[in-house]
Amino acid sequence: MVNRNCRATLRLLTLINRQGHPHPPLSSSPSGIDACWKQLQRNNVHGEHKIVSFFSPLASSLNTRQWGVKIQSRCYGSASVLVQRNPKFSKLNDEDVRYFEGILGAKNVIQDDEKLITANTDWMRKYKGSSKLLLQPRTTDQVSEILKYCNFRCLAVVPQGGNTGLVGGSVPVFDEVVVSLSAMSKIISLDKVSGILVCEAGCILENIISFLDSEGFIMPLDLGAKGSCQIGGNVSTNAGGLRLLRYGSLHGNVLGIEAVLADGTVLDMLKTLRKDNTGYDLKHLFIGSEGSLGIVTKVSILTPPKLSSVNVAFLACKDYSSCQKLLQEARRKLGEILSAFEFLDSNAMNLVLNHLEGARNPLPTSLHNFYVLIETTGSDESSDKQKLEAFLLGSMENELISDGALAQDINQASSFWLLREGIPEALMRAGAVYKYDLSIPVEKMYNLVEEMRSRLGNDANVVGYGHLGDGNLHLNVSTPQYDDKILSQIEPFVYEWTSKHHGSISAEHGLGLMKANKIFYSKSPETVKVMTSIKKLLDPNHILNPYKVLPCSSIS
Amino acid sequence: MVNRNCRATLRLLTLINRQGHPHPPLSSSPSGIDACWKQLQRNNVHGEHKIVSFFSPLASSLNTRQWGVKIQSRCYGSASVLVQRNPKFSKLNDEDVRYFEGILGAKNVIQDDEKLITANTDWMRKYKGSSKLLLQPRTTDQVSEILKYCNFRCLAVVPQGGNTGLVGGSVPVFDEVVVSLSAMSKIISLDKVSGILVCEAGCILENIISFLDSEGFIMPLDLGAKGSCQIGGNVSTNAGGLRLLRYGSLHGNVLGIEAVLADGTVLDMLKTLRKDNTGYDLKHLFIGSEGSLGIVTKVSILTPPKLSSVNVAFLACKDYSSCQKLLQEARRKLGEILSAFEFLDSNAMNLVLNHLEGARNPLPTSLHNFYVLIETTGSDESSDKQKLEAFLLGSMENELISDGALAQDINQASSFWLLREGIPEALMRAGAVYKYDLSIPVEKMYNLVEEMRSRLGNDANVVGYGHLGDGNLHLNVSTPQYDDKILSQIEPFVYEWTSKHHGSISAEHGLGLMKANKIFYSKSPETVKVMTSIKKLLDPNHILNPYKVLPCSSIS
Repeated sequence: MVNRNCRATLRLLTLINRQGHPHPPLSSSPSGIDACWKQLQRNNVHGEHKIVSFFSPLASSLNTRQWGVKIQSRCYGSASVLVQRNPKFSKLNDEDVRYFEGILGAKNVIQDDEKLITANTDWMRKYKGSSKLLLQPRTTDQVSEILKYCNFRCLAVVPQGGNTGLVGGSVPVFDEVVVSLSAMSKIISLDKVSGILVCEAGCILENIISFLDSEGFIMPLDLGAKGSCQIGGNVSTNAGGLRLLRYGSLHGNVLGIEAVLADGTVLDMLKTLRKDNTGYDLKHLFIGSEGSLGIVTKVSILTPPKLSSVNVAFLACKDYSSCQKLLQEARRKLGEILSAFEFLDSNAMNLVLNHLEGARNPLPTSLHNFYVLIETTGSDESSDKQKLEAFLLGSMENELISDGALAQDINQASSFWLLREGIPEALMRAGAVYKYDLSIPVEKMYNLVEEMRSRLGNDANVVGYGHLGDGNLHLNVSTPQYDDKILSQIEPFVYEWTSKHHGSISAEHGLGLMKANKIFYSKSPETVKVMTSIKKLLDPNHILNPYKVLPCSSIS
Repeated sequence: MVNRNCRATLRLLTLINRQGHPHPPLSSSPSGIDACWKQLQRNNVHGEHKIVSFFSPLASSLNTRQWGVKIQSRCYGSASVLVQRNPKFSKLNDEDVRYFEGILGAKNVIQDDEKLITANTDWMRKYKGSSKLLLQPRTTDQVSEILKYCNFRCLAVVPQGGNTGLVGGSVPVFDEVVVSLSAMSKIISLDKVSGILVCEAGCILENIISFLDSEGFIMPLDLGAKGSCQIGGNVSTNAGGLRLLRYGSLHGNVLGIEAVLADGTVLDMLKTLRKDNTGYDLKHLFIGSEGSLGIVTKVSILTPPKLSSVNVAFLACKDYSSCQKLLQEARRKLGEILSAFEFLDSNAMNLVLNHLEGARNPLPTSLHNFYVLIETTGSDESSDKQKLEAFLLGSMENELISDGALAQDINQASSFWLLREGIPEALMRAGAVYKYDLSIPVEKMYNLVEEMRSRLGNDANVVGYGHLGDGNLHLNVSTPQYDDKILSQIEPFVYEWTSKHHGSISAEHGLGLMKANKIFYSKSPETVKVMTSIKKLLDPNHILNPYKVLPCSSIS
């Protein structure tokens, strides 16, 4: 099995979080940033308005165990969002706190500043709320009692899992009560005949993966944040990740959920059946709704049997058209064993080779325009390898690939994966970065990178990479430092272009707070209107994860 | 490729339908049946009440091309349902007809009795409506205009695809206007890189399969009714079928839909992206809602590449526990190439051997308690066969299988499939049949068959078979003739048992009219309440497929 412990920045940072260094110390921030951050904090604490997702080029100083180096700075750019606190929401008082203590016991009602700062801040430190209360229910009934009370009192709530989201969906915007699912972390059952797992929402993905591994199964979901993210959050955000090409999305793999509505109603949809056509399949409403329709408390999921044989090839293509044809051939020739088809362009490759310690080019004779990483996973080592080798030979003969290397052992496979997975890390080291997670029909996908490149000229390094097999482009613009002018050249162009080509402005990260107002780039007004009606139906006081997913204007 | 033309009764009958013999002539019915049918017709035409799904042991006289024999009778038993026409619905008048002619042109507004009788009757002839109007829109805009008008006039509507449903969901109950999607049958696009197909809802499944086959792809969906059923109906009923074990449900494979709401609003959710996390994924509401929330007009679906190597084995097991362990082993050892795992018990096997011409036992030395059919589909013939043989050898050594045969050619593979797929046909020939389509956790599934057997004693032949890999049991009770007493011993016991064991009373057929009132056996009151709220939200006048899916009591 390929070692994926060295997966990515997100994973790396969340591991650090778990080791008790939840956030990069502000003290090491460069000049000017502290002031910006403090301004945000002032807004958070005292104001009824705030500018969130204001460009906050926060610095960090992380001692990473992974790479053994110090990351000096980290900048994320995105346009600002102005949000007003919903005046209908009540403010927390002592009586509320006493009520919650009555439900949960005093130790699960957290008012401690240290702990609250973690719950209030997302891992990128782009978003920061000012909640005064963190609740840690241990049962579905407790979640139900909390919500029933909050709904009655009109207290806003943020459901929180591992808090590893990238769009500000998992932290309060103002003073919302944080309901953490972390204490609900039991694995309830595994049916070894059908591979159906049932567990509580607070189970950390990596723990589930380990448990299943020991039982001979794998999760159909794997992502960089697995060390911290929780299955309830994964389901609520419809997490995509690294196994989607092979096993499909959570809409196909999640068989049932239990969810608590805003008024405390518990919806028991926790079926463990592959087939069930009795009425509307409501669980799908909660998959990907980012906690805005209900809190997912339990999940049942179909898990495939563990497969023993993994092969990884790293290939070079002369142009994007060859990458596409290669994908087509791989789907056909490798069929049932194809488990990853990732691509990176020469800019991404250069960036990784220049900025990531330990990165080695397995095809060093010349720099190619595109690189493709192919992984196969199957049950028979010799026949899988034979199949992959035949496919590679054929692709060389057809001139779809100009060069390539097949990993001979786990170390080589890991070093190939590092080139693809190290890109976010390398981008962080290179300076400021403007990140976009887009789905675009494969045929047109790379046109956006080229257009962006010609639009920005020499002012920026435009980098294209991603899950080609899923049509998921990670478009990143790297600059030495943050520049408003660059941002204005990227946005809204990048969203308009994606919309024009029938793409999605959020392939796998969700909308959260960051893109709630941008939903119309990917969804029609009629569709958003129905979404809004459903939100109003299930959460008439809008207490669940307010200001997120849907534009505030459509809700109020 | 295994020839699946000889697949099943449903397929066979729908093929006959297409040849211009839409229904078995009533004239050949045995004594007493005509009277019952005429009584039903009277209710349909003149009454405001009707007993539908009244046990209607209708006779048929079909010259089947497939089996080359005459089927003398066919009986389906299920408990009766009393439905009252919703008095809020308007009655059709001449002005309405003129309005529709204005939208569609006179030739697409059908009032002809002959054509209406087909649209009014389901293929089992269990359900018969008395609609006076069949509309055949050719565009989404026309569907929108029709619904807008019907909603305004409060005219009830039944959306109709291939009309191959088994629960009375696709025909009118009273005088609803039938909106047929048959004329919307264009394949719009196929992205050959990603395998994403876009087509209109009226495309016949078999035509899509043929088109994809010529392009090197397969549909992730295949079912007996493919010769008549339409993709819009498949999506609206969340059809399961024969490839679910391998490719999963339509919730995982359908990437987008276009649907028209009751008020004529067109929801464009026709994305062709594997990943799109921008707001609530509303398409899932329409997958499996049986046309009661909107009319699906277009579909985009992910299609896998065609695989060339198919192997079929027919095996014997001494007990149900061995069948389960064999499934577990097959999932592990065959992993990525396993495409079917079907089972039948000795009663089913006897029935097929005794009643189905051409059925031959490939393991004739003794009668075994259970039989399992395993199919593998992959991209490499020799390695797939090798893998299957190794698995079979291991299973023999572990005594999971007592005997077995591996098909050496297409004819043998077809003859193995015939034993599994011929069961519904054999049941029809054996006399009256009470049919139940259930999902039950695999471990407990066969207990129901055994309990039913001891409950009914020698009065009936209880037959268990189905998609073991999907946890889908087809429980059938066969008797020489229909008997109310038998029915009262089966129902509601079968539903109560299934409910108690956390199963589903409709694995893949849906609820339709037949089981709308039985939804609580599989869904909690809270969940049904939310379903009802969503129905009221999207279709406030309840004009779309009334009396179906949800209990009338919850809607009114």
